[in-house]
Amino acid sequence: MTGLGSIIQPRPAEAGASLAQVLQQRRTRLARRFAYPILLWSGQPVSRNFPANVYPFRASSHFLYFAGQALPQAAVYLEQEQLTLFMDEPDAGAALWHGPSPSRAEIAAQLGAVAAYPLAELKHRVVGAVTLPGSSALGQWWDVSLSSEAMSPALVEALVDLRLTHDKAALSQIRTAASVSVQAHRAGMAATPQAATEAVVRAAMEQVIIAHNMTCAYNSIVTTHGEVLHNEQYHHPLHSGDLLLADVGAEAPTGWASDITRTWPVSGRFSPAQRAVYEIVLAAHDACIAAAKPGVEYRDLHMLACRTLAAGLVDVGLLKGDPDDLVAQDVHALFFPHGVGHLLGLDVHDMEDLGDVAGYAPGRSRSDRFGLCFLRLDRPLVPDMVVTIEPGFYQVPGILNPARQSGQYDDAVAWDKLPQFASVRGIRIEDDVLITATGCEVLTAPLPTHTEAVEACMQGD
Amino acid sequence: MTGLGSIIQPRPAEAGASLAQVLQQRRTRLARRFAYPILLWSGQPVSRNFPANVYPFRASSHFLYFAGQALPQAAVYLEQEQLTLFMDEPDAGAALWHGPSPSRAEIAAQLGAVAAYPLAELKHRVVGAVTLPGSSALGQWWDVSLSSEAMSPALVEALVDLRLTHDKAALSQIRTAASVSVQAHRAGMAATPQAATEAVVRAAMEQVIIAHNMTCAYNSIVTTHGEVLHNEQYHHPLHSGDLLLADVGAEAPTGWASDITRTWPVSGRFSPAQRAVYEIVLAAHDACIAAAKPGVEYRDLHMLACRTLAAGLVDVGLLKGDPDDLVAQDVHALFFPHGVGHLLGLDVHDMEDLGDVAGYAPGRSRSDRFGLCFLRLDRPLVPDMVVTIEPGFYQVPGILNPARQSGQYDDAVAWDKLPQFASVRGIRIEDDVLITATGCEVLTAPLPTHTEAVEACMQGD
Repeated sequence: MTGLGSIIQPRPAEAGASLAQVLQQRRTRLARRFAYPILLWSGQPVSRNFPANVYPFRASSHFLYFAGQALPQAAVYLEQEQLTLFMDEPDAGAALWHGPSPSRAEIAAQLGAVAAYPLAELKHRVVGAVTLPGSSALGQWWDVSLSSEAMSPALVEALVDLRLTHDKAALSQIRTAASVSVQAHRAGMAATPQAATEAVVRAAMEQVIIAHNMTCAYNSIVTTHGEVLHNEQYHHPLHSGDLLLADVGAEAPTGWASDITRTWPVSGRFSPAQRAVYEIVLAAHDACIAAAKPGVEYRDLHMLACRTLAAGLVDVGLLKGDPDDLVAQDVHALFFPHGVGHLLGLDVHDMEDLGDVAGYAPGRSRSDRFGLCFLRLDRPLVPDMVVTIEPGFYQVPGILNPARQSGQYDDAVAWDKLPQFASVRGIRIEDDVLITATGCEVLTAPLPTHTEAVEACMQGD
Repeated sequence: MTGLGSIIQPRPAEAGASLAQVLQQRRTRLARRFAYPILLWSGQPVSRNFPANVYPFRASSHFLYFAGQALPQAAVYLEQEQLTLFMDEPDAGAALWHGPSPSRAEIAAQLGAVAAYPLAELKHRVVGAVTLPGSSALGQWWDVSLSSEAMSPALVEALVDLRLTHDKAALSQIRTAASVSVQAHRAGMAATPQAATEAVVRAAMEQVIIAHNMTCAYNSIVTTHGEVLHNEQYHHPLHSGDLLLADVGAEAPTGWASDITRTWPVSGRFSPAQRAVYEIVLAAHDACIAAAKPGVEYRDLHMLACRTLAAGLVDVGLLKGDPDDLVAQDVHALFFPHGVGHLLGLDVHDMEDLGDVAGYAPGRSRSDRFGLCFLRLDRPLVPDMVVTIEPGFYQVPGILNPARQSGQYDDAVAWDKLPQFASVRGIRIEDDVLITATGCEVLTAPLPTHTEAVEACMQGD
């Protein structure tokens, strides 16, 4: 590392003309939903351990949606269908050390802006615009209190309504990210037989993402302890009888995300117990995808996954009783304690910065039920929406031990059968699904889900 | 990505007993320099685009020095030679989703703490302690204004004095990180002949770091445009006549850093012009390492590098005149506009969060001279200090064009010779150097510097 300060370069733009057209169309769609002027701030690089050593810059997703480029310390002012860009030119020093970069005027042209000004002009030229929470750093250049509409619920609702469905440019980016994620998972499968630790498999997967000049959309989960749902440790050695759960997704330079989970056997062959449970999770996954189409409630897909899992667990003798009754009593949630998925877009949990406003249709809110409280999406599906479908099966000691001790589930769970499935600590199968006019398209379909095909991938096929 | 909040697990500790001993020794050394009680805050995970999607957590280096573990939202209270730990137990939900983690009492035992309390106890149990700037998030649990000594220059000086030299545990960690960085560079060299873009080489290098369960100590530079000193773009295609400059370093889970730069030919063979300039940079590198020993002023190493570069550039006809005169006039800085290196430790620019207090000995400050103003380190070398040695040669258009147009350097620079060296846009050779009792040890020496050995590495030797 050389001895000079560091700022982040804007990432390469999409082709100028088409980016401007895409952004114009987004502003046109926004104008139908919200009439007030809007100011959106991109954010700024965040220090890691000292000021010159920053995390890779990630612009605000709302900014990216209307600017298409990850410009640090920039604002877009949207008045009806026109865009004005506010950003400072790189200073002479930055140009020296960071190389040639497009001028503010050149970037403005790429974005189709009607005008472009330095940040110092914000306070003179923007009065009364609405902005979003979390723009505090903007306060250096603009008095957020200038607008009594600041942090307007109406703006939040308009943005959510707009970003719930994706235009062609967005879908193209999501497809590109998904395609790289598929390659990353193939690389992970092929690397596993020779890998000594989780970290080695993670490295093989992230190598693919980095080689495509992309970044991870979220911190990868690559673990033989899939029962730890948010496992960001990678030090465990791989043992032949283990399953490896990998939840890894690429994000395009434009910010559009993908999100894939697969679970495969370290040895290259599922054991009979692993295969049996995997097939149950896969049945839930496939049932949801077969049912996904416009008009269907996402909550009903979740319940379908729960019922399919419960029925399968009854079939293998782990649960006892009628699957519908088991789901009504949340027994399935002992083994599947999360929602079947979420919105996907510029954020891997799209628009989660706005809380549940994006995930939950107006008038709906989270359930208190153990089997539903973690559901992140409760809306009817509409064309051009992208969601994940990600059922799973986990043996979480922190859930199962108290449940067993309580005696509450003794009629429903065959506790004595659990040891037969001890090698199945965690399985999840997750794909990215685009809702089409009549059904859905699995954007991540090139990555196999069936056990034999997964085993073949591990042979490098 | 599943649908639940995310926090970061503490990273695996060093072996308990020895970590406690190491930390005890550090407190003993500190007590000789600073008597007052001290409170150090670790920091907390930073959101990337929404609250549950955070950057990989990096604890404050000062905290890491005295705690040895990257514990998020934790404080260590140092009173004389005793450590008290303040952190909250993982809540029940976190334990469920993030898996088993050591209790506060277990971590306190690993650290050799005399006591451990929840954060809410901070305000009752800690009054009058000194802390460091940048602990604002600590304000939620502790009133920083409680101490009139807050942000004490005396504490800063004591910490700098302590951390300027490294104990055995620190050196062991730096060696481990350096060893992984060496492997990463070897992988980058071997991957280059088949790579289409900079990103592919970067991926091959970072794969090695990730596979060792380490992280990058800073954003990698892997570029055919080495003349852009802070180039964080990776999209350029590799052309056969290009040089590739890679500045990539691993950081151990304990936070200790390494920092290596090598420059190699995309084709696998340096051209004569590239070889000639490379040999000049290498001569400067080797001269500094030959001269590095206790008592030597780091600034003198910088000047030695400048003179060696100037002499070499005179030899190949790019500069004209006496090397000492050229350096006195800062002519060398047209092609070598940064300092010859910096401190290395828990930060890749160690303690740069404290400004120039670490880099500049008391009473010294940065020069206004073009050839010296970017020097980050101006102290006499002492045993157990680790510094980088990283001379370079760059053709930065933003420097050379105005210099040529000014006419000021016409007697010193053979401008007409520059086209012969057009393929040499940027070269840097950087190693990590431990000052020993009588000289120095190059911690990154297993990675070759000589042109033939670099070429052999590219063949996978």
